Amino acid sequence: MADFKLMRQLAKSDGGKIILLVLDGLGGLPMGEYTETTLEYANTPVMDDLAQEGCLGLSHPIARGITPGSGPAHLALFGYDPVGTPVGRGVLSALGIGFDLKPEDVAARGNFCSVDARGYITDRRAGRIDSDVALPLVEKLDQINIPGVETFVRQVKEYRFMLALRAEGLNGALDDTDPQVTGKPPLPATALEPDAERTAEFVRAWLAEAQRVLQNDHPANMVTLRGFGQDPILPKFHEVYKLNAACVAVYPMYKGVSRLVGMDVLETGSHFTPSDEFKVVAEHWDDYDFFFVHIKPTDSRGEDGDFNAKASVIESVDQALPKLLALKPDVLLITGDHSTPAKLRSHSWHPVPTLLSAPASHLRDSAKRFGEREAQRGGLGHFMAQDLMPLALAHALRLEKYGA
Amino acid sequence: MADFKLMRQLAKSDGGKIILLVLDGLGGLPMGEYTETTLEYANTPVMDDLAQEGCLGLSHPIARGITPGSGPAHLALFGYDPVGTPVGRGVLSALGIGFDLKPEDVAARGNFCSVDARGYITDRRAGRIDSDVALPLVEKLDQINIPGVETFVRQVKEYRFMLALRAEGLNGALDDTDPQVTGKPPLPATALEPDAERTAEFVRAWLAEAQRVLQNDHPANMVTLRGFGQDPILPKFHEVYKLNAACVAVYPMYKGVSRLVGMDVLETGSHFTPSDEFKVVAEHWDDYDFFFVHIKPTDSRGEDGDFNAKASVIESVDQALPKLLALKPDVLLITGDHSTPAKLRSHSWHPVPTLLSAPASHLRDSAKRFGEREAQRGGLGHFMAQDLMPLALAHALRLEKYGA
Repeated sequence: MADFKLMRQLAKSDGGKIILLVLDGLGGLPMGEYTETTLEYANTPVMDDLAQEGCLGLSHPIARGITPGSGPAHLALFGYDPVGTPVGRGVLSALGIGFDLKPEDVAARGNFCSVDARGYITDRRAGRIDSDVALPLVEKLDQINIPGVETFVRQVKEYRFMLALRAEGLNGALDDTDPQVTGKPPLPATALEPDAERTAEFVRAWLAEAQRVLQNDHPANMVTLRGFGQDPILPKFHEVYKLNAACVAVYPMYKGVSRLVGMDVLETGSHFTPSDEFKVVAEHWDDYDFFFVHIKPTDSRGEDGDFNAKASVIESVDQALPKLLALKPDVLLITGDHSTPAKLRSHSWHPVPTLLSAPASHLRDSAKRFGEREAQRGGLGHFMAQDLMPLALAHALRLEKYGA
Repeated sequence: MADFKLMRQLAKSDGGKIILLVLDGLGGLPMGEYTETTLEYANTPVMDDLAQEGCLGLSHPIARGITPGSGPAHLALFGYDPVGTPVGRGVLSALGIGFDLKPEDVAARGNFCSVDARGYITDRRAGRIDSDVALPLVEKLDQINIPGVETFVRQVKEYRFMLALRAEGLNGALDDTDPQVTGKPPLPATALEPDAERTAEFVRAWLAEAQRVLQNDHPANMVTLRGFGQDPILPKFHEVYKLNAACVAVYPMYKGVSRLVGMDVLETGSHFTPSDEFKVVAEHWDDYDFFFVHIKPTDSRGEDGDFNAKASVIESVDQALPKLLALKPDVLLITGDHSTPAKLRSHSWHPVPTLLSAPASHLRDSAKRFGEREAQRGGLGHFMAQDLMPLALAHALRLEKYGA
């Protein structure tokens, strides 16, 4: 599916409307006293009704056993080869904050961190400083001048920022400077191929300046950079799927990956609830064929290891769902980009429970409610996340027959 | 997964310990009066407990409908592309008996056979002569001198031996000389590509000599050769998985394929029971991250068509299992390399029941016991044998996240 050969050939510009509702990190595991997963445990009467009427399955984001980051996981959900389409987190961050990244720019994701007198990292997130505290530091970094290259620093959120470099002939094949552990100094910027050596030199010069200008700003007295990369210039949703697509997401990262595949990113506020997000869908219902709706806190609460808080997020989505259902989408898919079991406090490789509701064409299976174990026996079986878009288009009757 | 790109990138050198327990030819079919498969019929309280606590699935060795030999089936279990990684049976035999095969050597598997006065095969296994009878004949064959090439003949077991040729510029692309039926003469050694013509000439000369020196040794008065090949020089377990791996197997073939992928082969006796093999694992528990444990007689009894004897082998494994469980492996996988239904008296294409026990991270499914029908509904679904290693590594928490 990676080259979209079949999709380009078969997709029609008319047909039903599709909602892809992604609860980030939806899949989970039982934990402690709970014998159910979070999704099974959560009280979700609306989703359970949809599961009874529709069908379930398990989505594998990348391959068996592979735990994805958010970028590749979303590319897969959107039908792109997540391994053959490497998009750096820097690029996603840049697009997520609406930075006008040029094709030759190199972007990286930056974190403020705390270092001790020897320059060893003591806190990889600088005590998770607030955006208010970070903003003047971001502005200081944006003032850094390195001969031969333009540099841009933009705030993402809290301790996170984006660095972009602009000059001719840059190459983003650079290794992360984040050592991923405390007790070590940030790594030097290192080229992963000879062509990137000049870019690495610029970054080293910039890092030296960053260290100098931040030296008195403890806890945010140093930075790490990761996910260097350049815009991979992907084929767009309207080209490959003939879909006029919109993204409703709160967190910049997901807006970024949506822009990358050609979606319009609809305006949201940073404290939007699922209900608020669904309202945005309703307001733009007539303008698009396809809505990607992203719910972040399922993942965040999973990473916190908070089983109950994750369940509450799922319940809040369930309570708001009637807003989406009132729009009568022809296809509603509810899934996750990956699993984030509270038990593991991290993303995981477990396949993701997925619900398909397309009353005109789905085949109801025996599921009684929405959950991992029901999905194991679901009518969609195990499938690759990359196959979800063709499935959605098919159920929206937006694909021609292949061959005569 | 064939090029191990993701594995090389993501595998960590620390994490949990893994046991891959392979009951050769585990999968089966009901037969005669038995409405259950052999595995379902066998009394396996320990595996059934593991199945209740863990999860099941069905492993496809090569592709749907394809019946594998032991070599490709094990390569797949080890995560290697079983079709793109052709390893001749001769190479496996050589490695299995510990022969020091050089990269340019060509190896073949040899069988003694019986021929009549016209040279037509009357018994493809020379009446299954004992090793004692075969040994002096092997020694005679080892004395054969062919100008321009060094030849080595080594006993494997009973009527089976290994032939290796050593010279510069050899090429192992030769067809088998075993016609696979009686009533025909052995086939001449034939090059499958022009570059192998010189090697074929050496083999034809050697076969003429073999015929001459064995002419009075009926029933072992001729030989057939098959599985010509050279060491494919595969990537090793420690490179691709960062695993310090050991093999516990009795039969040379499985030791051979384990050596090929870089495992240490631990010492076993030729009459070791499953219990004896598990004791070897226990003795070396601290020395390795990964143990491949191979149980041969499930396959042998399946090939005999002996439903009950195969069940007894499975039961003997179950009885010995507590020895392995006492080691508290982080991941225990119980599977087969392929199915060998007693009903068919041969390897088959049926997917192989597979049990995963990884208490820290598995998702318990609804299985009540270990068996084919339970595995059909299992939480792991249907999967390719090649995906088993990534799954094992994931559950041992030995894989980094892919992408940000």
